Amino acid sequence: VRNSTDAEFSAQGGRSGRRPGESGTRAAIAASASRLFAARGYDRTSLRAIAADAGVDPALVTHYFGSKQRLLIEVASPPIDPKLVVAQVVEGDPDGAGERLARLVLGVLEDPEGRERITAMVRAAASEPEAAVLMRDMIVAELYGPMTAALGGDRSEFRANLVGSQVVGLVMARYVVAIEPIASAPVEEVVAAIAPTLQRYLMGPLI
Amino acid sequence: VRNSTDAEFSAQGGRSGRRPGESGTRAAIAASASRLFAARGYDRTSLRAIAADAGVDPALVTHYFGSKQRLLIEVASPPIDPKLVVAQVVEGDPDGAGERLARLVLGVLEDPEGRERITAMVRAAASEPEAAVLMRDMIVAELYGPMTAALGGDRSEFRANLVGSQVVGLVMARYVVAIEPIASAPVEEVVAAIAPTLQRYLMGPLI
Repeated sequence: VRNSTDAEFSAQGGRSGRRPGESGTRAAIAASASRLFAARGYDRTSLRAIAADAGVDPALVTHYFGSKQRLLIEVASPPIDPKLVVAQVVEGDPDGAGERLARLVLGVLEDPEGRERITAMVRAAASEPEAAVLMRDMIVAELYGPMTAALGGDRSEFRANLVGSQVVGLVMARYVVAIEPIASAPVEEVVAAIAPTLQRYLMGPLI
Repeated sequence: VRNSTDAEFSAQGGRSGRRPGESGTRAAIAASASRLFAARGYDRTSLRAIAADAGVDPALVTHYFGSKQRLLIEVASPPIDPKLVVAQVVEGDPDGAGERLARLVLGVLEDPEGRERITAMVRAAASEPEAAVLMRDMIVAELYGPMTAALGGDRSEFRANLVGSQVVGLVMARYVVAIEPIASAPVEEVVAAIAPTLQRYLMGPLI
């Protein structure tokens, strides 16, 4: 169990001038929050529990992150760079875009850390309206923005919504509710099943 | 307001070793919850109101059901008869099955009562593991069972999972997170966009 002291506090000077101990405390809080949000759900994870898990005083959680929602958003940043996703999807054979996106999505979700972060986001958005609003803003700014810009074409925002709906639905079915047989299906089977859906949502006919 | 008495308790058969009165109290709470959820909606029905309606102490609601979300899942029944859904989807031109299902789903979700019930269920499943397990069991027994039986064919359970993933993802995108433009898109545009997805998941190639 780690302890944060006044010595750590005294070095507060904004992000640039932080001492190593502060970023360590901050990172420990963020790691505990990420783990607990995924394991228990956003609603049932208290700031107090996060502090206890990180081994710090609860006041430090508020000190560094302000609120549970801000903490969530902080730890819920996309597990891979959205620009990388967009680049990999848009570059290359257009007919393979859906499959490349499906593979990227499954790749992130099959990684324990990526899965934890994404299920925490989906759970939070589902269970708290304020979290849903923050999440929506983050998705639009960080993911839909670059994606629709890259896609160009017609109705790119609606297309991004549709892609998001299938991805979130997959997260729910395979990882959150964990319904069989899709929960245990090999990655390649899931990729094969959803790739044509994503392909059409990205650039196929919608009518 | 109903009262649970020892006389009522004594008439209960009960399961295995439980006191006779327990299942009566439990049933009274479930009946009140079911009635109030339907009459007032899930969000505006408190555990306290359910307890008052059932004539029991609020602590008993928590004792038997743990949380409002779990109570919801226990008393939840699909807003339309699954057999009706299956019949309408399976009967008629096979090529129109996806569109008929999309239309049915949107029909239920555009109705305020159906929407509230389904979003409450999705929220519960997303945020409480126990609720997710109960919902999974209900989906398998009441929806996937009849649907896969009617579909016959290959990999019908995997197909039912895929259909469920797109439907739940749509619920999240359009109604829970309410991201634009899909949240405000006309029903016909959403039907047109997801119908081919459901069609392929129901009976198209998955590889």
